[in-house]
Amino acid sequence: MSVPDGLPKMEYRLLGRSGLKVSAISLGGWLTYGGHVENENTFACMKAAYDVGVNFFDCAEQYSGGESEKVMGDAIKKFGWKRNDLVISTKIYWGTAFGDNPVNNVGLSRKHIIEGVNSSLERLGLEYVDLIYAHRADRETPMEETVRAFNHIINTGKALYWGTSEWTAEEIASAWRYADKLGLIGPVMEQPQYNMLARQKVEGEFERLYEEFGLGLTIFSPLKIGILTGKYNDGIPKDSRLGTSNDNFVKGMNERIGDESWKKDIETVARLKPIAEKLEISQATLAMAWVLHNKNVSSAITGASRPEQVYDIVKSLDAVSKLTPEVMDDIDAVLGNKPTALIRRY
Amino acid sequence: MSVPDGLPKMEYRLLGRSGLKVSAISLGGWLTYGGHVENENTFACMKAAYDVGVNFFDCAEQYSGGESEKVMGDAIKKFGWKRNDLVISTKIYWGTAFGDNPVNNVGLSRKHIIEGVNSSLERLGLEYVDLIYAHRADRETPMEETVRAFNHIINTGKALYWGTSEWTAEEIASAWRYADKLGLIGPVMEQPQYNMLARQKVEGEFERLYEEFGLGLTIFSPLKIGILTGKYNDGIPKDSRLGTSNDNFVKGMNERIGDESWKKDIETVARLKPIAEKLEISQATLAMAWVLHNKNVSSAITGASRPEQVYDIVKSLDAVSKLTPEVMDDIDAVLGNKPTALIRRY
Amino acid sequence: MSVPDGLPKMEYRLLGRSGLKVSAISLGGWLTYGGHVENENTFACMKAAYDVGVNFFDCAEQYSGGESEKVMGDAIKKFGWKRNDLVISTKIYWGTAFGDNPVNNVGLSRKHIIEGVNSSLERLGLEYVDLIYAHRADRETPMEETVRAFNHIINTGKALYWGTSEWTAEEIASAWRYADKLGLIGPVMEQPQYNMLARQKVEGEFERLYEEFGLGLTIFSPLKIGILTGKYNDGIPKDSRLGTSNDNFVKGMNERIGDESWKKDIETVARLKPIAEKLEISQATLAMAWVLHNKNVSSAITGASRPEQVYDIVKSLDAVSKLTPEVMDDIDAVLGNKPTALIRRY
Amino acid sequence: MSVPDGLPKMEYRLLGRSGLKVSAISLGGWLTYGGHVENENTFACMKAAYDVGVNFFDCAEQYSGGESEKVMGDAIKKFGWKRNDLVISTKIYWGTAFGDNPVNNVGLSRKHIIEGVNSSLERLGLEYVDLIYAHRADRETPMEETVRAFNHIINTGKALYWGTSEWTAEEIASAWRYADKLGLIGPVMEQPQYNMLARQKVEGEFERLYEEFGLGLTIFSPLKIGILTGKYNDGIPKDSRLGTSNDNFVKGMNERIGDESWKKDIETVARLKPIAEKLEISQATLAMAWVLHNKNVSSAITGASRPEQVYDIVKSLDAVSKLTPEVMDDIDAVLGNKPTALIRRY
Repeated sequence: MSVPDGLPKMEYRLLGRSGLKVSAISLGGWLTYGGHVENENTFACMKAAYDVGVNFFDCAEQYSGGESEKVMGDAIKKFGWKRNDLVISTKIYWGTAFGDNPVNNVGLSRKHIIEGVNSSLERLGLEYVDLIYAHRADRETPMEETVRAFNHIINTGKALYWGTSEWTAEEIASAWRYADKLGLIGPVMEQPQYNMLARQKVEGEFERLYEEFGLGLTIFSPLKIGILTGKYNDGIPKDSRLGTSNDNFVKGMNERIGDESWKKDIETVARLKPIAEKLEISQATLAMAWVLHNKNVSSAITGASRPEQVYDIVKSLDAVSKLTPEVMDDIDAVLGNKPTALIRRY
Repeated sequence: MSVPDGLPKMEYRLLGRSGLKVSAISLGGWLTYGGHVENENTFACMKAAYDVGVNFFDCAEQYSGGESEKVMGDAIKKFGWKRNDLVISTKIYWGTAFGDNPVNNVGLSRKHIIEGVNSSLERLGLEYVDLIYAHRADRETPMEETVRAFNHIINTGKALYWGTSEWTAEEIASAWRYADKLGLIGPVMEQPQYNMLARQKVEGEFERLYEEFGLGLTIFSPLKIGILTGKYNDGIPKDSRLGTSNDNFVKGMNERIGDESWKKDIETVARLKPIAEKLEISQATLAMAWVLHNKNVSSAITGASRPEQVYDIVKSLDAVSKLTPEVMDDIDAVLGNKPTALIRRY
Repeated sequence: MSVPDGLPKMEYRLLGRSGLKVSAISLGGWLTYGGHVENENTFACMKAAYDVGVNFFDCAEQYSGGESEKVMGDAIKKFGWKRNDLVISTKIYWGTAFGDNPVNNVGLSRKHIIEGVNSSLERLGLEYVDLIYAHRADRETPMEETVRAFNHIINTGKALYWGTSEWTAEEIASAWRYADKLGLIGPVMEQPQYNMLARQKVEGEFERLYEEFGLGLTIFSPLKIGILTGKYNDGIPKDSRLGTSNDNFVKGMNERIGDESWKKDIETVARLKPIAEKLEISQATLAMAWVLHNKNVSSAITGASRPEQVYDIVKSLDAVSKLTPEVMDDIDAVLGNKPTALIRRY
Repeated sequence: MSVPDGLPKMEYRLLGRSGLKVSAISLGGWLTYGGHVENENTFACMKAAYDVGVNFFDCAEQYSGGESEKVMGDAIKKFGWKRNDLVISTKIYWGTAFGDNPVNNVGLSRKHIIEGVNSSLERLGLEYVDLIYAHRADRETPMEETVRAFNHIINTGKALYWGTSEWTAEEIASAWRYADKLGLIGPVMEQPQYNMLARQKVEGEFERLYEEFGLGLTIFSPLKIGILTGKYNDGIPKDSRLGTSNDNFVKGMNERIGDESWKKDIETVARLKPIAEKLEISQATLAMAWVLHNKNVSSAITGASRPEQVYDIVKSLDAVSKLTPEVMDDIDAVLGNKPTALIRRY
């Protein structure tokens, strides 16, 4: 399938206070690769993304027990893409298919960071990743050990930048404290969930980090597993991921279906429909553009499972300019979840 | 021989203030590997330990003149264990079978640390050990040289953590002083002797180190060469290690037999018998549980020479909870060697 | 073609406050290698330069899209020159022939510096360059990232010294600020344009840097694309570079032809003719000697396209001593562009 | 030739404030290896030295234009000596057989240190030397560059310790200043000339360095090219080195023959004869023992050209104890060159 005519040009953004440029829209391997979508389809999605200018492909050691990294590495070889053109990431924390004694195959100890990165690079078939993430914070490992270990990874040429995923603001600040104290490199990016229904962390808790540490964001779940597209407004279609996937995260979502918070989300999404219609865009485009409107977002990671979805998502780049202050106020009024500024300026 | 039913689940503890987890019970290669017990037996002991959840296997360059490392490395290959599942250590100081001019094949000079580690890794057939110990303090080598050399080992990927064995509290503090001054990594663990009959160092001298430097302990000789099992209460059996081994340490023990301190120890052990009987455990289990009761002990290294011994030792994990404050007081009353707190809090 | 008799002996100068010695006259690959002059000719020029004592050969990743580095590397192999005898440089910033997505193939991010240097070394067929330059300043990449990345290049043995090209004095000072703060190596040399018609930067803006940071200069365009030789005094010859080259820089020069600044330059050059005649040297020799007269210039990079030009340029070494204070004053009177001292001494 | 009976046991001394032990007597490759004594003889001398416990073999990149390193490396392989048993040194400064353009093949620039060490290791056939010396101070290279470059050599595993040769006290202190400032490793040893006729530097100028920086000495020329053996007391034998060698240093000595300073030295040496006779040792043994008597001397490097000379020199180890305070006073009275203490203690 070839790229449709008329798609907007990809936008590239600096990854926080670094010199690396990532496509504003990127492709994640969370559900897609090696999972319920077969490999050929994954290849097609990656190619579609590459063709529309996506340069950032996100993965993690534990996605599909390591299979996602293998498929991503296979795609890079299959299509003969130049390494320099790509920004490849992976994340360390959860380990992969475990051996007999997995106690040290998880977390952010020096042991798991080094062993995990070595395993990931082997699966990817790469000498280095561009970005290496701590996939969670590890309260059992001293922060200094983790900061030193990620710097060891960078010093040995196995990664170019390191960052975090789903850390608290305090944990990120603590990592920088050790980096500064020891003259080491601190975490330059964080990967949180961010979408219209989940904005407290990015717009509230993290408020000071962008200026203070130059934190860049590579956010995931911009459409909240599709809820924000409006496709669940009238119930769960049988062929959707929510209806079929065995993934734990999705199963967790399934369990929410029908409870109060789920109902509240569906109602909120339904009330966004008129705003999208007025702007003559789909609700998915509105939700995606809303995320990209936030300049602290370096890249929004999407989990497309068909090439058409990739093309659709890219259209949102054109819609960002439609989000005038007035439209943003209308959206805030519907969402009712705008964080109060934590920074007081006297 | 297969694992008996009903053994308690292995417990894993953080190695001091690090993110590494070691099994509370571990296996040491001091007497066992390559020594008077043939290799096949060693393999059987290692397998038994691995099967009950032991992940930490301890060795040293000089155990059996380097043979212990070879056998340990052979076992890892033979059983196809995953490297990530294992915590492998060795220790540098004493050198191994010497060349013609061994003056620099001993101690903690940069030369011996680097050459010693390279030799150990070759014998083990590994790219890195998890833990590297300074097997003694070296008063002839400047502390700064030793601290720098162990950091060189870590920076070149040959070890993940470094520590000490049989150092004084002052020496450990001095190592940290240089590590802090130079922004380097300090020693995270110490390997002292620790058991009911030898507790002054761990409970007295080291008292401040656990909080101050996050020191973890991997203690050896929890049963004091079997004395604490009570098996020498009525004299030395002919087939025991004390009766047969050529090992220098054991020979040193032999020389003590019959002297005043030996008699005193045997009498003390005999007086512990009622306490063990009251708890319905063996004296060996009591002694082992007593060591594990100390939370500053990350791992107790045992020197089993038969698989059955491994299984027996593991049972002590269940006995720790029997050591109530009252029982501990009774034990202290028998031992009469509880160190006075050195830390004064006003 | 063999070296003519009577050429002066090459002079070697320290590269700023470093221990490296570069020939006062050096050969650059800007227009020459792989470009409009065929490879054999390039080999001949390099050999001529080498034979007269030139030890410094300058290149850049983007010269002729990477072809210049290949030809330079081929020459070194072809002539069997010893690596230790040579000072080889290249420059990172502009990238080379791009892949599909060149956003990260440009600039001074850690990614492009590492990937760019690796690519350059592969094209050159060398394990390291002596000098690595940041070919421009990159205002999008944090200075700290750039300083760290060049130190990574030095620490991994891929370059011996790093410097800048066409940076401002403030940017150079800022790089040193981060180097000093982090205990890293700062930029030791800068490569600016410098000639009789362009002296504000070298003699004005950079005035403090020589003493403050030990900055050395490897200047380019000492003859300003030949203008200072006087050969364009009577119009543009059809067979000159200005008449024939497709190079962008030269095309930019072409566009200036006939405008006011071009006319002013030509008039100035014409007025230098009597001075050259009085000293019994050519105008080219005068211009070259004038550049070498500045002791802050470690090396003047020339872009000879024929061996004869190399020999001619070397003659200027003998002419430096003719530039007495009186002659220099006469030249300043013609040029009328002597920068006012920025450093005030009370 | 086998080791004679009755030789004293070799003494090992710490190399300054380091953990490395060097034999108090060592063998240097200055005149011997690859020079006027053929290789087989060199092998015999090295074997004799090794057999009497010499573990330190000293070389330099420029000794016999690199040939000394090759022969030393050949000997190590030939005899199958274990690397750990040896302390091998070389020195960087003078370069070796030059290429066409040797300007950067000399001195202490980062370029020559790295390229020089790589070349030396290749000639020696070793992965690392134990000691790397700066063979002279280089006033043209910034001290910081030199200190960083030697640390790079240590960090990349190519040497274990670095030091200096024929530096001034101020230069050594300056190197430590940069090492301390940057958290790097400073020079641990200096190689000066030291003997009864040349003691101002070691006993005067360097007085504070032993305590302040832990400086160790590996001194050369303990017998001052044989003058102190008394063999030139009655003129120059035709078959001696002074009579036959083409070495520049020796030729420089030859030129002194007959001048006032030479005559004064010969007279002084003649007046030492009665002291040696009273102690029942040869003058050579006296001179050698006198050097070893100085505890700041870690090793005295000798340049034996026959195995018998090695055995003779070793005998001086037994003679050190004969140098009572009274004997030392008698010697000082003859020499008349005892430095005045520079350190004033109030």
